[in-house]
Amino acid sequence: MSTGGSEGLFAQKTVEITDDVLQTYKNQGGFDLLGRTKDQIRTTEQVNAALKACTDLKLDGLVIIGGVTSNTDAAHLAEFFAEAKCSTKVVGVPVTINGDLKNQFVEANVGFDTICKVNSQLISNVCTDALSAEKYYYFVRLMGRKHSHVALECTLQSHPNMVILGEEVTASKLTIFDITKQICDAVQARAGQDKNHGVILIPEGIVESIPELYALLKEIHGLLKEGVHADNISTQLSPWSSALFEFLPPFIKKQLLLHPESDDSAQLSQIETEKLLAYLVETEMNKRTKEGTYKGKKFNAICHFFGYQARGSLPSKFDCDYAYVLGHICYHILAAGLNGYMATVTNLKSPVNKWKCGAAPMTAMMTVKRWSQNCGSTSIGRPAIHPATVDLKGKAYELLRQNEQKFLMEDMYRNPGPVQYDGPGADVKAVTLCVEDQDYMGRIKKLQEYLDQVRTLVKPGCSQDVLKAALSVMASVTDVLSTISSSSTSGQQFA
Amino acid sequence: MSTGGSEGLFAQKTVEITDDVLQTYKNQGGFDLLGRTKDQIRTTEQVNAALKACTDLKLDGLVIIGGVTSNTDAAHLAEFFAEAKCSTKVVGVPVTINGDLKNQFVEANVGFDTICKVNSQLISNVCTDALSAEKYYYFVRLMGRKHSHVALECTLQSHPNMVILGEEVTASKLTIFDITKQICDAVQARAGQDKNHGVILIPEGIVESIPELYALLKEIHGLLKEGVHADNISTQLSPWSSALFEFLPPFIKKQLLLHPESDDSAQLSQIETEKLLAYLVETEMNKRTKEGTYKGKKFNAICHFFGYQARGSLPSKFDCDYAYVLGHICYHILAAGLNGYMATVTNLKSPVNKWKCGAAPMTAMMTVKRWSQNCGSTSIGRPAIHPATVDLKGKAYELLRQNEQKFLMEDMYRNPGPVQYDGPGADVKAVTLCVEDQDYMGRIKKLQEYLDQVRTLVKPGCSQDVLKAALSVMASVTDVLSTISSSSTSGQQFA
Repeated sequence: MSTGGSEGLFAQKTVEITDDVLQTYKNQGGFDLLGRTKDQIRTTEQVNAALKACTDLKLDGLVIIGGVTSNTDAAHLAEFFAEAKCSTKVVGVPVTINGDLKNQFVEANVGFDTICKVNSQLISNVCTDALSAEKYYYFVRLMGRKHSHVALECTLQSHPNMVILGEEVTASKLTIFDITKQICDAVQARAGQDKNHGVILIPEGIVESIPELYALLKEIHGLLKEGVHADNISTQLSPWSSALFEFLPPFIKKQLLLHPESDDSAQLSQIETEKLLAYLVETEMNKRTKEGTYKGKKFNAICHFFGYQARGSLPSKFDCDYAYVLGHICYHILAAGLNGYMATVTNLKSPVNKWKCGAAPMTAMMTVKRWSQNCGSTSIGRPAIHPATVDLKGKAYELLRQNEQKFLMEDMYRNPGPVQYDGPGADVKAVTLCVEDQDYMGRIKKLQEYLDQVRTLVKPGCSQDVLKAALSVMASVTDVLSTISSSSTSGQQFA
Repeated sequence: MSTGGSEGLFAQKTVEITDDVLQTYKNQGGFDLLGRTKDQIRTTEQVNAALKACTDLKLDGLVIIGGVTSNTDAAHLAEFFAEAKCSTKVVGVPVTINGDLKNQFVEANVGFDTICKVNSQLISNVCTDALSAEKYYYFVRLMGRKHSHVALECTLQSHPNMVILGEEVTASKLTIFDITKQICDAVQARAGQDKNHGVILIPEGIVESIPELYALLKEIHGLLKEGVHADNISTQLSPWSSALFEFLPPFIKKQLLLHPESDDSAQLSQIETEKLLAYLVETEMNKRTKEGTYKGKKFNAICHFFGYQARGSLPSKFDCDYAYVLGHICYHILAAGLNGYMATVTNLKSPVNKWKCGAAPMTAMMTVKRWSQNCGSTSIGRPAIHPATVDLKGKAYELLRQNEQKFLMEDMYRNPGPVQYDGPGADVKAVTLCVEDQDYMGRIKKLQEYLDQVRTLVKPGCSQDVLKAALSVMASVTDVLSTISSSSTSGQQFA
């Protein structure tokens, strides 16, 4: 087993995992047994180093644990290994706190359940504090990268007053001023009911969902790539971005000028969007007070970033179980000699003994985005497993929409409490996992059962009437399904 | 029962607590059933309002729940009520997350166990993250007001690399530069062992322990009291404070200029000492790199404040039990017609059925500090329950000292995990509670048993030899004890 992350792999640093070694790490979470580095095996140099390491070490398999970028690398590496006739098989495992590696095969990611439970507890604690003091608005920024899965799940677990999902911002093309106004209106409505406290969740990825901030970030990153020094960037921005940039408070300017991460996204954990919004809301509320349109108490904000303190937590029972099962599946994938597969478990919302193990080719999860990340040029990108967005038509989001007015006005704060390992709370699962109709493969199997039933009912010897009815019905069914299929699969799938 | 904190009491807002009302709040923590305001009943106006409310409402008892300041107010209020021949009895209950209401009668405060467990879990999570990434130093600021009880307990639970206790800073008169140097030397020593990560705890109160910062704060608060506007303060400071102030980064300047709290201390939760130290350490490490005295990797810091997210947490089993028992004692204190007493439970480190209930007069916990808070004038202060400092001669601190070198260099991170309500982890207690010899009243009783034994052994009829030996021994015992007593009770006790 290589240690020190991908760089450890290239350097062929290994450790044999025995029961003794594993003893103190079992069910503990974290990456401290194997370590981690910049999680990337992508450049020709890196890919060749991985090939050499696997060949030299005569590895049967290389198990890559991670989120969308790591598993994309794993898929390409599998292809590269196959072409190079390397006997090492590459297997992927869906592990990311962001919860954004979701598709028809993958229902959940190891780590997501834990991070949401730990964060929900902390959010609830802050809600209790808000309700006790009755004078502060807490702006809480949550980890989770580009998409808002963590924020949605935490909202459904802890019922804060408000959450701004990145996907909503994108769908409604909300500007930073729209969002500010939305929060201010909420503060004002609550003040009308004599409530001067509240808790508002801000996903860290929101900064990339806000159109004008995203455009500004892209410009900055473009200039940084051209080698322009951070100090000189403000003078080289487009007039529009420059105006926005100059408007922002100094602390945010400095954070926006940070170099992007290896996947081209901004250093989201370093950008204090919660402080920016708190600052803008405070400014606007003071303005409304001056104009006489707001007559409530002075608005007070306290900001929090719930980042690293949730990430290294002891895993929940669900995550321990899930990771154990995925580990076993990896063994079977390798024993079967499969290359480029991801270990999967479906029907996760049922008890463990109803879980269904599987393996899916990673290529089936990959798509090509028509636009590439580089400043809007239209070159065709590399096939990749793209992070799933929060489905604004999904049941979890629907649940949020049904309750958001109550959450906003009625302080229905809910404290799920600390993660439990024993007793009644130990088997609680993520809300988003339980409300969605998942188990894709299970439902495919169910369909096949229906087809088999029809086949059994309508076989030689059945009546003319039955045959006639069946033919007529199935003709229209196939007709409808072909029409739907041709419109929904417009060539984006990577075969 | 009055709601809305002390202001609710003055306004005679009440709610009757029935089983139904209590149902959803039981064992939930927080102050959201009764609410809280500025926790003060001190001025003539406030004291009279309280008297009027208690008389109007014909209250048998007024139970005041809080820390050192609230219970000081309770003691004075009890005296005032007695003088006014008011029939309401005032009872105090030791509840504060700071854990600083400790004396011979009070072993622990409700809330301290919970906050330390929640914080320790979060610190451990950050430790795991540090160990996984191997490139960041986390500077974590903890709540706890002036003294470092929370930081000490959390250190003993989670074993971070370093903690700077306010009491150590005071005892050694460390300047901000001494502390910076101490951290830099630690970073450098760890880099020598190829360790480029770490976790350092900073109690929020440390800013008042650092002599030159404390002096600066006192000057600022003095000027604010004189009505000088925050913007003009920097020009009116003494040359020495002015030099320090100008040296500090802008964000800290702004925070130091905030108005002090009602107990004259700085707004500790708003002063980001962790960011100041991280900034100073980074500056110093860069300097050392430039000078060639430090050859390790670039120093990277990430800052965290673990404040409100731990405070509103669901209480631990220990805190639930403790609060229940204290509640029962309050009933008995009032039934007995006692005024000015605090409910106490001793022998807390033993199982609940070995706990000893009691009541102690609050005056016995009060002392008069020779100096008063007002800019160094020597007027005699008002008797008060003063917060206990971390005892640098106590067993808990000794335990820290024995391990600090190992904690610093060997990454012995320990994760106590989330608070448990069931299973083996549910009965874990605070380390500082368990290592100290507490149970003061229990030990007094033990002494009385010894005296009784001597009395039984040496009664009329015993041999001359026994009498002679006993006389000789007891003469020297009383001699020694009188000497010790006269030197240790130099008139500070408030009778």
